[in-house]
Amino acid sequence: MGVKSIMEKEISQAVIRRMPRYYRYLGDLLDVGVERISSNDLSKRMNVTASQIRQDLNNFGGFGQQGYGYNVKYLHEEIGNILGLNKMHYVIIIGAGHLGQALANYTKFDKLGFKIAAMFDVDPEIIGTKVRGIPILSLEKLAEYIDAHPVDIATLTVPKSQADMLANQLVGLGVKAIWNFAHVDLELSDKDVIVENVHLSDSLMQLSYNIVRHTKEKSGDANG
Amino acid sequence: MGVKSIMEKEISQAVIRRMPRYYRYLGDLLDVGVERISSNDLSKRMNVTASQIRQDLNNFGGFGQQGYGYNVKYLHEEIGNILGLNKMHYVIIIGAGHLGQALANYTKFDKLGFKIAAMFDVDPEIIGTKVRGIPILSLEKLAEYIDAHPVDIATLTVPKSQADMLANQLVGLGVKAIWNFAHVDLELSDKDVIVENVHLSDSLMQLSYNIVRHTKEKSGDANG
Repeated sequence: MGVKSIMEKEISQAVIRRMPRYYRYLGDLLDVGVERISSNDLSKRMNVTASQIRQDLNNFGGFGQQGYGYNVKYLHEEIGNILGLNKMHYVIIIGAGHLGQALANYTKFDKLGFKIAAMFDVDPEIIGTKVRGIPILSLEKLAEYIDAHPVDIATLTVPKSQADMLANQLVGLGVKAIWNFAHVDLELSDKDVIVENVHLSDSLMQLSYNIVRHTKEKSGDANG
Repeated sequence: MGVKSIMEKEISQAVIRRMPRYYRYLGDLLDVGVERISSNDLSKRMNVTASQIRQDLNNFGGFGQQGYGYNVKYLHEEIGNILGLNKMHYVIIIGAGHLGQALANYTKFDKLGFKIAAMFDVDPEIIGTKVRGIPILSLEKLAEYIDAHPVDIATLTVPKSQADMLANQLVGLGVKAIWNFAHVDLELSDKDVIVENVHLSDSLMQLSYNIVRHTKEKSGDANG
């Protein structure tokens, strides 16, 4: 049995969910020329406790020196490396409707190293056109395309009814990661594939829950 | 001091995040005519433990009878009520670009009781047009519109640089809940406003993290 390195430790998805936010805040600090920041100052800006920040970063080995705070550029780079942003990811989008085209138009993804290389659709009206230089290809060309080009992430912006079928087709073609916008939790034949869901209606329902809860609390205050 | 009802208990956002998923699964069961389901069967379908389901639902007072499982229609309705889906929510969208138009095209939101009533933009080319019957109005008309119509949720699909300014304008006009797609955590003058963020680049970075981690684990397996 070898010694487990700190990187091999199991890190909770809750911590992972916070890392992009650190990356975003540190990037904003860099943009305005801040070179060093204490965990206290970072905590005030981010509205989390300083102890939470230290705990989160300690999962990856720390990065701060006691009393000196964090070097913003170094920490930004290191978190970028942890998040895999030090390499290019090739992305395709299945479904070139409004949402697919909205994603293709996000120049922010490029800057983070996510290169949207092609989109696929079944609509003859849009096949052969381009969005921000990104070609919309026929879905029939999917296998051929994946055979000839690197694809790290496939984005699914298709109706729920087609999502499972297309996801399993992608997996069969060797795609290892799916960014799923369909309103369904994919049932994949290969459990080894990584899926990240963006369930927009779930998000709207959480918002609605918090509105109801907030209204109840306020009326509770008024009566209490 | 009165007796605190079970609804007044503080319920963690982690539980809240799972409720829309229960709602979605129960809706799918209803669609195929399933009337009753045990927490074990529901747990297998949803890939969470039966004990997790029981704990989550117990936050709201249970809903199952020992040995009889859950009545699907009743549970679906009750979770809908908890999520505030028993009333109509009027939604506006600020920013009628691709993403705003993609959201306007989701008929699913209507079915959940989220009525997208109007969109706002500054582009004279699209002001005055409609998307699925939803008018795109001039941003200059925002105050006038909110004064004359109910607005429960304002959706922000605008660039990061304009998000804070517009969010605070909305809050000033009395909007109490914001669904934010801008790549920034809003800094609001009124801390009482409810914000739900959809940070798409954060989601992509989480996916990227999990790809890196997965690749490391696999190469670790191969060397171990």
